[in-house]
Amino acid sequence: MGANTWGELFRVTTFGESHGPAIGAVVDGCPPGLALSAADIQHYLDRRRPGLNRFTTARQETDQVELLSGVFEGRTTGTPIGLLIHNTDQRSHDYDDIKSKFRPGHADYTYAQKYGVRDYRGGGRASARETAMRVAAGAIAQLYLAQHGIRIRAGVVQIGDYCTAPEQPEFQWDRVAEDPLYCPDPHMSEAAQALLKQLLKEGDSIGARVRLEILGVPAGLGEPVFDRFDAELAHALMSINAVKAVSIGDGFAVASQRGSEHRDELTPTGFLSNHAGGVLGGISTGQTIIAEVAFKPTSSIRIEGRTIDVHGQPTTIATRGRHDPCVGIRGVPVVEAMAALVVMDLWLRQRAITNP
Amino acid sequence: MGANTWGELFRVTTFGESHGPAIGAVVDGCPPGLALSAADIQHYLDRRRPGLNRFTTARQETDQVELLSGVFEGRTTGTPIGLLIHNTDQRSHDYDDIKSKFRPGHADYTYAQKYGVRDYRGGGRASARETAMRVAAGAIAQLYLAQHGIRIRAGVVQIGDYCTAPEQPEFQWDRVAEDPLYCPDPHMSEAAQALLKQLLKEGDSIGARVRLEILGVPAGLGEPVFDRFDAELAHALMSINAVKAVSIGDGFAVASQRGSEHRDELTPTGFLSNHAGGVLGGISTGQTIIAEVAFKPTSSIRIEGRTIDVHGQPTTIATRGRHDPCVGIRGVPVVEAMAALVVMDLWLRQRAITNP
Amino acid sequence: MGANTWGELFRVTTFGESHGPAIGAVVDGCPPGLALSAADIQHYLDRRRPGLNRFTTARQETDQVELLSGVFEGRTTGTPIGLLIHNTDQRSHDYDDIKSKFRPGHADYTYAQKYGVRDYRGGGRASARETAMRVAAGAIAQLYLAQHGIRIRAGVVQIGDYCTAPEQPEFQWDRVAEDPLYCPDPHMSEAAQALLKQLLKEGDSIGARVRLEILGVPAGLGEPVFDRFDAELAHALMSINAVKAVSIGDGFAVASQRGSEHRDELTPTGFLSNHAGGVLGGISTGQTIIAEVAFKPTSSIRIEGRTIDVHGQPTTIATRGRHDPCVGIRGVPVVEAMAALVVMDLWLRQRAITNP
Amino acid sequence: MGANTWGELFRVTTFGESHGPAIGAVVDGCPPGLALSAADIQHYLDRRRPGLNRFTTARQETDQVELLSGVFEGRTTGTPIGLLIHNTDQRSHDYDDIKSKFRPGHADYTYAQKYGVRDYRGGGRASARETAMRVAAGAIAQLYLAQHGIRIRAGVVQIGDYCTAPEQPEFQWDRVAEDPLYCPDPHMSEAAQALLKQLLKEGDSIGARVRLEILGVPAGLGEPVFDRFDAELAHALMSINAVKAVSIGDGFAVASQRGSEHRDELTPTGFLSNHAGGVLGGISTGQTIIAEVAFKPTSSIRIEGRTIDVHGQPTTIATRGRHDPCVGIRGVPVVEAMAALVVMDLWLRQRAITNP
Repeated sequence: MGANTWGELFRVTTFGESHGPAIGAVVDGCPPGLALSAADIQHYLDRRRPGLNRFTTARQETDQVELLSGVFEGRTTGTPIGLLIHNTDQRSHDYDDIKSKFRPGHADYTYAQKYGVRDYRGGGRASARETAMRVAAGAIAQLYLAQHGIRIRAGVVQIGDYCTAPEQPEFQWDRVAEDPLYCPDPHMSEAAQALLKQLLKEGDSIGARVRLEILGVPAGLGEPVFDRFDAELAHALMSINAVKAVSIGDGFAVASQRGSEHRDELTPTGFLSNHAGGVLGGISTGQTIIAEVAFKPTSSIRIEGRTIDVHGQPTTIATRGRHDPCVGIRGVPVVEAMAALVVMDLWLRQRAITNP
Repeated sequence: MGANTWGELFRVTTFGESHGPAIGAVVDGCPPGLALSAADIQHYLDRRRPGLNRFTTARQETDQVELLSGVFEGRTTGTPIGLLIHNTDQRSHDYDDIKSKFRPGHADYTYAQKYGVRDYRGGGRASARETAMRVAAGAIAQLYLAQHGIRIRAGVVQIGDYCTAPEQPEFQWDRVAEDPLYCPDPHMSEAAQALLKQLLKEGDSIGARVRLEILGVPAGLGEPVFDRFDAELAHALMSINAVKAVSIGDGFAVASQRGSEHRDELTPTGFLSNHAGGVLGGISTGQTIIAEVAFKPTSSIRIEGRTIDVHGQPTTIATRGRHDPCVGIRGVPVVEAMAALVVMDLWLRQRAITNP
Repeated sequence: MGANTWGELFRVTTFGESHGPAIGAVVDGCPPGLALSAADIQHYLDRRRPGLNRFTTARQETDQVELLSGVFEGRTTGTPIGLLIHNTDQRSHDYDDIKSKFRPGHADYTYAQKYGVRDYRGGGRASARETAMRVAAGAIAQLYLAQHGIRIRAGVVQIGDYCTAPEQPEFQWDRVAEDPLYCPDPHMSEAAQALLKQLLKEGDSIGARVRLEILGVPAGLGEPVFDRFDAELAHALMSINAVKAVSIGDGFAVASQRGSEHRDELTPTGFLSNHAGGVLGGISTGQTIIAEVAFKPTSSIRIEGRTIDVHGQPTTIATRGRHDPCVGIRGVPVVEAMAALVVMDLWLRQRAITNP
Repeated sequence: MGANTWGELFRVTTFGESHGPAIGAVVDGCPPGLALSAADIQHYLDRRRPGLNRFTTARQETDQVELLSGVFEGRTTGTPIGLLIHNTDQRSHDYDDIKSKFRPGHADYTYAQKYGVRDYRGGGRASARETAMRVAAGAIAQLYLAQHGIRIRAGVVQIGDYCTAPEQPEFQWDRVAEDPLYCPDPHMSEAAQALLKQLLKEGDSIGARVRLEILGVPAGLGEPVFDRFDAELAHALMSINAVKAVSIGDGFAVASQRGSEHRDELTPTGFLSNHAGGVLGGISTGQTIIAEVAFKPTSSIRIEGRTIDVHGQPTTIATRGRHDPCVGIRGVPVVEAMAALVVMDLWLRQRAITNP
């Protein structure tokens, strides 16, 4: 659909740089009649907002979203929905280092190679700030899908070597919203918090793994052969900053499974297992969709690293100021948002087929 | 672009069912002037063809591709390239079992749920036969990219618990073409072959992991924020039958890495490592692109499994006849083909930006 | 969607050159369950077929369409429908003239400028032969739409200075199918036939105007602001070979109308007039959609004209053999087909919005 | 691309209602390095702005465009360009009439039929106000194209029965910018101004015809078979509010032309005529592109007309306040803008093909 647009029927186009005047989005294709207000969207944005606690970056954006069009008398009209967030924390920073050097592990080098120019202020378009608009647009999709019984949840299930899984006795989805690491397991969270404190001291960072579940998806969503449910989901999730891997169902573990073990048998009351993660042949089975993604550790760390400057000369760089020790945490609402965009679009595409 | 079309500028549309009259593809957007013949494409198709050896299914398709348009006097003209393969092994099979029952682990159930009808003969559109046209279209992309110094290679690096990696002493990309399992490591191949023989006896199957490398990709390919190189690649690879996971660079291992360990430092002579897998911020770095995918074990096995019939009644089913014990093997040329389609499309998209 | 693909949800991709092995199309997005056979499509193709009578070109293509996929047990399955027509009249012609010279009024010069190469045999991709696949794909749309009460008709209403209009006493849509000029008015047809005979003698050609009506379109189709019903229709009709103008409703006459005269007043029993041609604000009103298109006279005439050869040297050229004296006649089924593709696609897009 | 998005590579997405908080656009795909400021765009917007003179509506929008992203240090960066105009004339009007009744000739009825709801304030999304963002986006395209020697101009050549043509002795493109009717002919303008004064008194309106010329387009732009230059142009122009007809070159006159008269002969120094309007086979010839469009008379007139209310009951309505007596005048910069979007997109698409 275009570099900055997601979706075929529920189309989300985002714009904006980290330290420009504003970031925004246009949501085109939202069915008319959905109750929607700026406050509804704000609720989702607040979950993603930086500065929430000591484990996320200190940038104090208020991130108040404005609803500019597409809603009349509290309901969507079917016309495009314009969303805008002004960048309030836009003060003149000292960007001399970033301006003249490429930060290793960042997109500085590749943006310069691709476009010839780059907005170096705070990472420009490559900043995680861009994901705020994904969350805003995803909120609209989540509100719509909730009316049709579809619910999306995600949580951090691994940080460093600390991990958890739904099989763990203390694993509870309900506690994610309250946990400072968006972690469903109190034991893992406690251990990981200690690790993050240590990393903050050391000026280092750590990766994470996030689990996603989509509940209530009816059988039949997904458009083979290229726009399969799982393929669209992989695209959407891999497009999130710092994500390096995506799996559906048993994921990489299937490489060592046997067919007799992997195939989910059917009975009149449903499937007996869900190794497939709720997708067969690229189409949803009616089971819970299960996916996982890996977030790399942020490269914005205080530990000095080797790099080159814009003239190709060797130098070193260290990130000043404070950054998230684990970007995967703030990735949780972004994962949910992208999942919502995928389901919403496939939902509308399926409606075009099945309506009598 | 549409369910059965891949790409924005290099657009591949495929059609055809496993046991219909033919399968085919239209490749639209190929630049004019590329030397191309049916034989050039056939060379790639022959690698994928079933019946190659004892570890792949016995179906004896000759799979002779016809070049119907878009080429004149041995060169592409810029008009759409029509490709066709007649299904020669189309004899009337006994499909009573498949017709009335849903095979667990297959797309039978989901196609019926989605469309209300399904072509049950040999899996219909959900059959791996569909991937032949991906290989044919990918061949055109590979021929084009080769002229610009871009080369794509893939190999099986895990079957069951047997695995290998480029760090292994005997790992050699050059031996993949000759290996019956498309495996770059003779030790792993030998052990895995013994396992596959055993599985053939037992009537079971096994999963696999395939490694992909794309060499010679210049820095600058990939279209943030949604059509990043890695996101497009994840979409393309996850759209292959049986694939359940995709990783870029260090993949899921990044969840336990530190920023100081993961970030690839730069020097005037290049990057010092490639944890990122050749992509930063969704744009190629100029390094080798590294990805891995997991193929599930085929559910077409002789071991009986529980399922329901089309009336929702409980029953059992076992696949008769012979099938691949490890579909990941034949997936290797498909992985290469999809990678070629991704690179080709992003290459043309970048040309639109950078051409003076 | 791509140069050779029409539609967002009902997507038609065509390929093939005039004198290559075959022409074909892929129709992706057709809802499942539609009764469809090759014979159903053939019926529409036969209307367009050259060689029908003395006023259309003598090429004796049998144009037998093959249905290669997407249909099972007589009904569409929701998977892509592959269509193919082999070019039977593919004998080696003497193309020396066309090979070395650019025919004025033809696409020879522009294809050479755009692509650097061109398939000069019979016009290659630029030949009107390409429109056969539009008719085949449009047939599927027309069959589907007919089930929902939507009917499409077109006829020649002007050839040279002879013209007609629905207000004329003898104007009858029913006679179009029988008329050798696809003309709804016997008086006009008779006069125009005499003109065409004269032109055949002189070796010249003439333009035509075609009127299109789409009956039974419900209110609500069309996707403002860019994919309005009228805008999509204008795109589709202007994409037909030789079409130089498209109008909706009163067309260019609106330039001299007053608002009090043009606006169609509403009453509880419907609109009192249809100056708008059934579209307001880009959305169908529920009235008959009315449009007209102008076809230029073919430049393939026996009268010698000045041109340049491929080396830029001045020369002359005259078309040998026989060609249509009025290409607008055979354009009638193509106009209907493109209208069907437009309505079909907008119908599916509207379903995605309005389905409960 | 989606209802509110134009283009494949140069993609413009617009949003906003007439009386909502703001209107805006996202321009995605603009090549990096283009010098661009809000003032550059403002220059184009000022031409379209209502309230310019007595013949255009009195709404006093200041229409100050904000540039929110995609530009850094005065040059485009290749990332999406966000544009915003706040609606300053947003005061609470008395919309009771429009709220409860459907204005004949307006989109009130069709929006209600399509979406079930409508923003009735000032026409909502269907208002001509939406075209301001087309002009803003088109300005960027025009600035880019100007650097490559491509220039776009349009003017009113017919109002009611007063018309002109380039063959007229006093016809001068240079005077369009200064003429209150954007008319290139002083005689026609004078006569038409008298007519408009009369219509303002009577409370009626009149249609118009606008001529478009695109100079400096190189041969080779346009993507057969569906995205031909003329077909894309027809789509773009017909998508403008109130446009009812589009012609290329000789337009509807070709219906009475002979082949020997219409075909543009070639010589080593160029074409001898331009009946084709600069397009052959859907590809630009290198000549000036010539097109014309017809604007209907606005239905917003003070003369009472019959209609129905939202309950289907018969009633009458008359537009209060002042409106443009001839919307075609303000359509001129919109025609230029849409032409620029078409050329820009096809220019980038051609670059992807021809780059070495």
